[in-house]
Amino acid sequence: MFKAKITVTLRTSILDPQGKAVEHGLHSMGYTSVSGVRIGKHIELEVHTESRDEAERVVKEACERLLSNPVMEDFSFTLESVKRSVHAEG
Amino acid sequence: MFKAKITVTLRTSILDPQGKAVEHGLHSMGYTSVSGVRIGKHIELEVHTESRDEAERVVKEACERLLSNPVMEDFSFTLESVKRSVHAEG
Repeated sequence: MFKAKITVTLRTSILDPQGKAVEHGLHSMGYTSVSGVRIGKHIELEVHTESRDEAERVVKEACERLLSNPVMEDFSFTLESVKRSVHAEG
Repeated sequence: MFKAKITVTLRTSILDPQGKAVEHGLHSMGYTSVSGVRIGKHIELEVHTESRDEAERVVKEACERLLSNPVMEDFSFTLESVKRSVHAEG
């Protein structure tokens, strides 16, 4: 079983009104040293496959087909192997 | 100047209907090996401070006061120093 952590971000060429609103809010609260706020998605999921290659394929396809909008978003992810049974690792 | 990458996640005890909807969508598309989908926020911003300590304080406060809901969300962040002038690093 693998645990995937996926980050989906708006491409830099795409305006981010939500980020601008947050930035404005932070400035109003006195945090004037903050700029360039961009807001994306963080997705965590488990993939129950035997091999890392298969898990990678599933996550990549899920990102391309459902989790991100390929026209205006980029994605990246990490995969971490999760052992369900306790055993010693070298 | 520092670049902060912030992850805001729902606490595990909180139900995530958006995650459930995405999981259902993935299953419908044939990705039946996927489970435990949880959706959070990924926020990137720049902090224009001289010291890392000051940048850390600003980001932590911003997370606590605006970017996350302390009742049902957790946050974590990384800070990366960004040099604006070109110079050699040892």
